[in-house]
Amino acid sequence: MLERCIGERRLRQIQRGVQNMKLTFLCLLLTLLVLRGTIGAGKYGTPQQDFIELRQRFISHPHRALAEQNQPEPKPKKSDKDDEPPLRSLNDPYSLGPKISDWDSQRADWIRRHPERPNFLTKTKPRVLLVTGSSPKPCENPVGDHYLLKSIKNKIDYCRVHNIEIFYNMALLDAEMAGFWAKLPLIRALLLAHPEVEFLWWMDSDAMFTDMAFELPWERYAPYNLVMHGWDEMVYKDKNWIGLNTGSFLLRNCQWSLDLLDAWAPMGPKGPVRTEAGKILTKTLKDRPVFEADDQSAMVYLLVTQKEKWANKVYLESAYYLHGYWGILVDRYEEMIENYHPGLGDHRWPLVTHFVGCKPCGKFGDYPVERCLKQMDRAFNFGDNQILQMYGFTHKSLASRRVRRVRNETSNPLEVKDELGLLHPDFKAVQHHAS
Amino acid sequence: MLERCIGERRLRQIQRGVQNMKLTFLCLLLTLLVLRGTIGAGKYGTPQQDFIELRQRFISHPHRALAEQNQPEPKPKKSDKDDEPPLRSLNDPYSLGPKISDWDSQRADWIRRHPERPNFLTKTKPRVLLVTGSSPKPCENPVGDHYLLKSIKNKIDYCRVHNIEIFYNMALLDAEMAGFWAKLPLIRALLLAHPEVEFLWWMDSDAMFTDMAFELPWERYAPYNLVMHGWDEMVYKDKNWIGLNTGSFLLRNCQWSLDLLDAWAPMGPKGPVRTEAGKILTKTLKDRPVFEADDQSAMVYLLVTQKEKWANKVYLESAYYLHGYWGILVDRYEEMIENYHPGLGDHRWPLVTHFVGCKPCGKFGDYPVERCLKQMDRAFNFGDNQILQMYGFTHKSLASRRVRRVRNETSNPLEVKDELGLLHPDFKAVQHHAS
Repeated sequence: MLERCIGERRLRQIQRGVQNMKLTFLCLLLTLLVLRGTIGAGKYGTPQQDFIELRQRFISHPHRALAEQNQPEPKPKKSDKDDEPPLRSLNDPYSLGPKISDWDSQRADWIRRHPERPNFLTKTKPRVLLVTGSSPKPCENPVGDHYLLKSIKNKIDYCRVHNIEIFYNMALLDAEMAGFWAKLPLIRALLLAHPEVEFLWWMDSDAMFTDMAFELPWERYAPYNLVMHGWDEMVYKDKNWIGLNTGSFLLRNCQWSLDLLDAWAPMGPKGPVRTEAGKILTKTLKDRPVFEADDQSAMVYLLVTQKEKWANKVYLESAYYLHGYWGILVDRYEEMIENYHPGLGDHRWPLVTHFVGCKPCGKFGDYPVERCLKQMDRAFNFGDNQILQMYGFTHKSLASRRVRRVRNETSNPLEVKDELGLLHPDFKAVQHHAS
Repeated sequence: MLERCIGERRLRQIQRGVQNMKLTFLCLLLTLLVLRGTIGAGKYGTPQQDFIELRQRFISHPHRALAEQNQPEPKPKKSDKDDEPPLRSLNDPYSLGPKISDWDSQRADWIRRHPERPNFLTKTKPRVLLVTGSSPKPCENPVGDHYLLKSIKNKIDYCRVHNIEIFYNMALLDAEMAGFWAKLPLIRALLLAHPEVEFLWWMDSDAMFTDMAFELPWERYAPYNLVMHGWDEMVYKDKNWIGLNTGSFLLRNCQWSLDLLDAWAPMGPKGPVRTEAGKILTKTLKDRPVFEADDQSAMVYLLVTQKEKWANKVYLESAYYLHGYWGILVDRYEEMIENYHPGLGDHRWPLVTHFVGCKPCGKFGDYPVERCLKQMDRAFNFGDNQILQMYGFTHKSLASRRVRRVRNETSNPLEVKDELGLLHPDFKAVQHHAS
């Protein structure tokens, strides 16, 4: 009879087992759904690394690559469902808003009428609005919100030092354009509302500034309207979907940019449009797995198929890390500290470390979450040390939240010079570091 | 025999029961520890409300008041222990740093030498640095980080519109001054590092801007060095520990402020100093429960005991909510929307809604966490609507994360005037709203 009791316990265990299996299956399904987004976002560093990375991912996880094939649309939660727009049909073209064709003159008039808000802060330094954001909902993985907090603190620091304003978005302006397309309606709204802004700098929430001293080479971009990290050859010749990255880019506030957004957006709407567009992108672009259309592939596609229309105003930057793939950077921070100094922005001291595929806010990324979080802490502290040194502190180690003094205090604090000249940034000084 | 099985199950249930009771007890203990901090921070709204609030708390929870009596110091976690400084003895006076006595002239020299970074942006508008922050650790209550994120997004919005820079602190600069005293070393470091800053605006992480249009009446503060929400009578006559609030205050960057910090700090060091000082504060101040010294009580004590030395440079503001106790505000948002408009800053449309005692980041506050989070969402959305209207959107309700259009889009976006004139703030316009 004791057996019966044990039997009962076993039964309960089995029942629990079944529950867990159900859960596990659900998790797997979610992983795949999430993965599509992740791979879609596909943000990488140098070409070499990218291919290694890509190969690794698809060789080591063939089931994932396979799982890309035909995923069902994720079902909206009941609470959301009421608000979900009907899925747009293929013959119903999407538009970001009413056509605007004279923006340059509208904006020029406004700027003339508002001398108090010039679009250039100095002869060469434009007024820049850094735009980033995250979901209005708490993260699925609760610790994710803490890393979103660290990420915006990091951006606040860089932007304070470099005199850049920040817009942090937590609203989904167009439900159709959810996911990696949400930035398009947002960017358009901000460009039109802020004629005083010359350049809008989009940065993903999973990217952190790791060089607080590097000032962007604004003069270089004077002839261009769109600046992304990437390589001409990989985009125009190879048509590679990771030949550029849309996780951190500059967009000038002008008619050309509104036209670009109009040309960029049509693949975005959720449902058949995004799905069918995905097939075209995969067919056209090199190494792109099968999944719904993403903003990055769509940008590559646009540049490849309408090169003559756009390319002359697009600058693909690879001289420094406007976006830097974390996988090739985070293990080298100690070496960088050993050999170099902030202000270089490139492989010696990357401006941006971008945690592509980590999805600390989602429940599942491509990498073990522990590795991601550990490395995000290191990146944050690496950047934060450049802020803390202004006040005479540093992290006890790149792994430690705790800080220690690096300078004795003085009764003549203004005679202290911070090594990086970030304390009272005059941009020549910063430029000097940057060159 | 079946009974035996049930008996076994019962046994397991009882065992579980015991576990839960242990847990419950641990929780209670923690609650009390946390509560000390909460009450210590003691941040409230209008006097009437404060007393009601206070009475409620101590009448409805006598055990809490009781529990204040002699609490052991919370034991640091093993990992932290190594870094913990030895507890300071009573006859070892604490200092924030080397004495500085000529700061005004040092700073004046610097400002003369740096015309590019004036300490006044207009004749009357000072350069202001808003300082806030949160623990370097993730919140004990995971959802707390999401509300810290919303809270800094809210501050970024107000500060962008009002041309105020932000410093978000996540480092504990002096382990001795942990808790509500941590702001003192931070504030001193920032004043000394940023001579260009005229006013430092401290704001707690649990305070949110709910009036995005209200510009502070800077002219009013020209003769003063410290501005807090409070009432002269409650402080100087009643010696009431909640006669003012240190959750949101302005401090001028000058010698007087450094001297004030030096006079304010000595009750701060963890251990016997903070404990003994707490007894003095409770003995001296009205209605203060027995618990270790907190920065707010210490400020009241300083003003009461050294009135002649400090009072003439301290302005206690009660004409608008530089700090506003959430309990008396959050249920009136709909009424405010009905009858008033942003830019008033007072009971009609509070500048700041401060979630005193909610501790969304800690595991236990004084209020049911659900009520706190629900109301923090409402406060965030109430403020966020004033930002979203600039772009033609609003939250579907004060309870909803989702947004909807409030304006049709136009092809002449610059002809749209946003009601609040926040879009291209010229401070006269904002002032107009504020008056």
